[in-house]
Amino acid sequence: MTPKKQLALNVFIAPTGHHIAAWRHPHSAANGGVDIDHYIAIAQAAEAAKFDAVFVADYMFSYEQKDADFASRSAFAAYLEPLTLLSALAVFTKQIGLIGTQTTTFNEPYNLARRHASLDLISHGRAGWNLVTTGNEPEAFNFGDKPLPPHAERYERAREFAQVVKGLWDSWEENAFPRDKASGRFFNPEKLHVLNHHGKYYNVRGPLNVARSPQGRPVIVQAGSSPIGRSFAAEFGEVLFVAAPTLAEAQVFYNDVKAQAAGFGRGPDDIKVLPGLFPVVGRTEEEAQRKYQELQDLIQPEVGLRLLSGLIGADLTGLDPNSKLPELPQALGHVGRQKLLLDLAVREGLTIKELYLRIAGARGHLTLVGTPEKIADELELWLNSSAADGFNVMPPIFPTGLTDFIELVLPELRRRGLFRTEYTASTLRGHLGLRVPTPTWARQAQAAE
Amino acid sequence: MTPKKQLALNVFIAPTGHHIAAWRHPHSAANGGVDIDHYIAIAQAAEAAKFDAVFVADYMFSYEQKDADFASRSAFAAYLEPLTLLSALAVFTKQIGLIGTQTTTFNEPYNLARRHASLDLISHGRAGWNLVTTGNEPEAFNFGDKPLPPHAERYERAREFAQVVKGLWDSWEENAFPRDKASGRFFNPEKLHVLNHHGKYYNVRGPLNVARSPQGRPVIVQAGSSPIGRSFAAEFGEVLFVAAPTLAEAQVFYNDVKAQAAGFGRGPDDIKVLPGLFPVVGRTEEEAQRKYQELQDLIQPEVGLRLLSGLIGADLTGLDPNSKLPELPQALGHVGRQKLLLDLAVREGLTIKELYLRIAGARGHLTLVGTPEKIADELELWLNSSAADGFNVMPPIFPTGLTDFIELVLPELRRRGLFRTEYTASTLRGHLGLRVPTPTWARQAQAAE
Repeated sequence: MTPKKQLALNVFIAPTGHHIAAWRHPHSAANGGVDIDHYIAIAQAAEAAKFDAVFVADYMFSYEQKDADFASRSAFAAYLEPLTLLSALAVFTKQIGLIGTQTTTFNEPYNLARRHASLDLISHGRAGWNLVTTGNEPEAFNFGDKPLPPHAERYERAREFAQVVKGLWDSWEENAFPRDKASGRFFNPEKLHVLNHHGKYYNVRGPLNVARSPQGRPVIVQAGSSPIGRSFAAEFGEVLFVAAPTLAEAQVFYNDVKAQAAGFGRGPDDIKVLPGLFPVVGRTEEEAQRKYQELQDLIQPEVGLRLLSGLIGADLTGLDPNSKLPELPQALGHVGRQKLLLDLAVREGLTIKELYLRIAGARGHLTLVGTPEKIADELELWLNSSAADGFNVMPPIFPTGLTDFIELVLPELRRRGLFRTEYTASTLRGHLGLRVPTPTWARQAQAAE
Repeated sequence: MTPKKQLALNVFIAPTGHHIAAWRHPHSAANGGVDIDHYIAIAQAAEAAKFDAVFVADYMFSYEQKDADFASRSAFAAYLEPLTLLSALAVFTKQIGLIGTQTTTFNEPYNLARRHASLDLISHGRAGWNLVTTGNEPEAFNFGDKPLPPHAERYERAREFAQVVKGLWDSWEENAFPRDKASGRFFNPEKLHVLNHHGKYYNVRGPLNVARSPQGRPVIVQAGSSPIGRSFAAEFGEVLFVAAPTLAEAQVFYNDVKAQAAGFGRGPDDIKVLPGLFPVVGRTEEEAQRKYQELQDLIQPEVGLRLLSGLIGADLTGLDPNSKLPELPQALGHVGRQKLLLDLAVREGLTIKELYLRIAGARGHLTLVGTPEKIADELELWLNSSAADGFNVMPPIFPTGLTDFIELVLPELRRRGLFRTEYTASTLRGHLGLRVPTPTWARQAQAAE
């Protein structure tokens, strides 16, 4: 009998919580974004609960640049940089994966590959790279005086960038360092592979000055949702983080990327689709609804309206919040998310205010408010309906929203055999059931035969 | 009575030790460069001994790019990236400073400022930035297809880069984040300062998305030794790491940079000069000499000759090792170091082999082989002769070379009242006696009055 399929579950860490007003709630650690002990406690709780990984997002700007008033009322202005944060978490954990975001738009591939490879060694094979392109226009002005490159060009650069990074990660074979004191050979030159990449956007000689990790290379995580983004995800992504508020939308995405992956010589099990999940858990339905309403009531009107503007890529602040959304021009850097929000508003006939209240928490991700049984039913349905291989869990408040999920939902999932009770591997690839990839140079050698 | 002047002492961490053949010695941890536990043990030992800071160097290439055979016989090919390494060390220590190298040549100022500010928050005010420009030609080819910019241009860029980084670090005032749950104000927009830098090489709007640390900003460490480098160090450096093999050379440097600093409106106490110190310690003179000889005997001839070539910026591998050095053209990226080595060879009439044996350990830094008393005499002399405010200690082997210094030399220094017995501060600035700097925007406002 085939073992029952189990969920992969990550904890998406946000400084104070994923609900926009989380920081105002009495339960949240408002200074979480600068407090390393807060993050360590979250990572250790997630590890004790046997999550696959913690996941950290990133932006190369302060939200102040988009809207100082909005930013001053929310918790997005300042926080710890993901790779320094995750390295600190790496040494306070032993088994949980550590996924950090770094953009391809404003980094050099050599630097990025190095930092992630270093994290992978510090954690003994638990690093993941959430590969993004920058879609926030203000970020460009921290890196020069030119606006962002167009969407398609950003992905074209990202494609070459990802190839370079993978090639650099393959610089050293597993046993390249004999460190033989007697003969005086520290490394074996035959086990070293120089990349020598010459491309349209990048010229990178290599090799990387970081050795190979126990999991071969960091896991590549991707969250592209536009048509170009999906194709990119199918080519490079090993874990796909996707905003899918309904089962039907998740199924379309799931089947599309797994089918497209075949075109890149990849199998369906080489890609794990993890939709975002915003869970508000109560022992009773009523308790869950009350918890959710408490958070919704803390949303400042200035924040809700501007949050929606930011997500949809258009300034809605002059509009009547009780009216419906007007037609909007397609917005640079927001193609996938804008369509999702417009579809939701039309499908349910929402006003602007109803829409911002709806998305303030999960920003277009699956929102489940209810009992552990109700939430487990839905996760099980998605797992068994070609909609998800697991979820990127986005607790509304840190730390209590995570505690609720661990104490109430996980036992129900385990009762059903849907989630591990112990780790059976020591690397992130191992937890996720992903193969150690064949090095780039070995694939080229095979192809040449 | 004025309290007696005390030494500032850093531990310069190298994966296996500062002697070129350290990794071959039975006492060295040959896989130290990839083993985070090895680094943690060093940092904790340094903290228990009350050092001011640990110091980590960096290169943006594998030494393989210069010379694969040489690299394969030494321990420079692969190691952990400094900022990820130091973040991991930050959470396993409580008081010691954490100085990491990042180059201005192949980084964006926004990214670099962020990572160091993040380390500064994770460590609660213990970060230092060793600001370097890239002098190794092969590094350029990991970042494009053009050779390094000329020496003077690299420093001109570094000057603007440092101004941008300081400005970004000053984005937020100390009390900018009230995080007031009742009123809904997370930060106070009046306590935020947008940089808006438009310069010759960089355009950076800001603000930085990382809050201010308890020490105001990371300490800026600098190691420029060429005339341009010294002027730069006098303008920006708060700790100067310098290669000075003799008291006279150290005095010239010390007095020069402190005098130049006055021209930038800085006082002599705003700059701490810390020459590198390569100590080989024995309970007797004979034991010390034997320890040194053991290491010298492990130097492979291929390594010694090529190490010298690399440091001096000229290929010496075709020359007779028993001959004297010929005239050499001034080498890009090696101006200060080349002069130092040529002066040494002429002064003492050394052959090429004698020179490479001489510099293999300390590479032009002060080398002291002897008893604790002899070493303490010399350090005391330098401290009281306007030659040094302290030292960047470069143990020949990790961990035993550090243990020797801690167990044998520090007690002698303490007996003389030259080194602290307990920390009296909690930040790196505090340990070093450096002021919390006035923010850039406040100085501009003062100047405008």
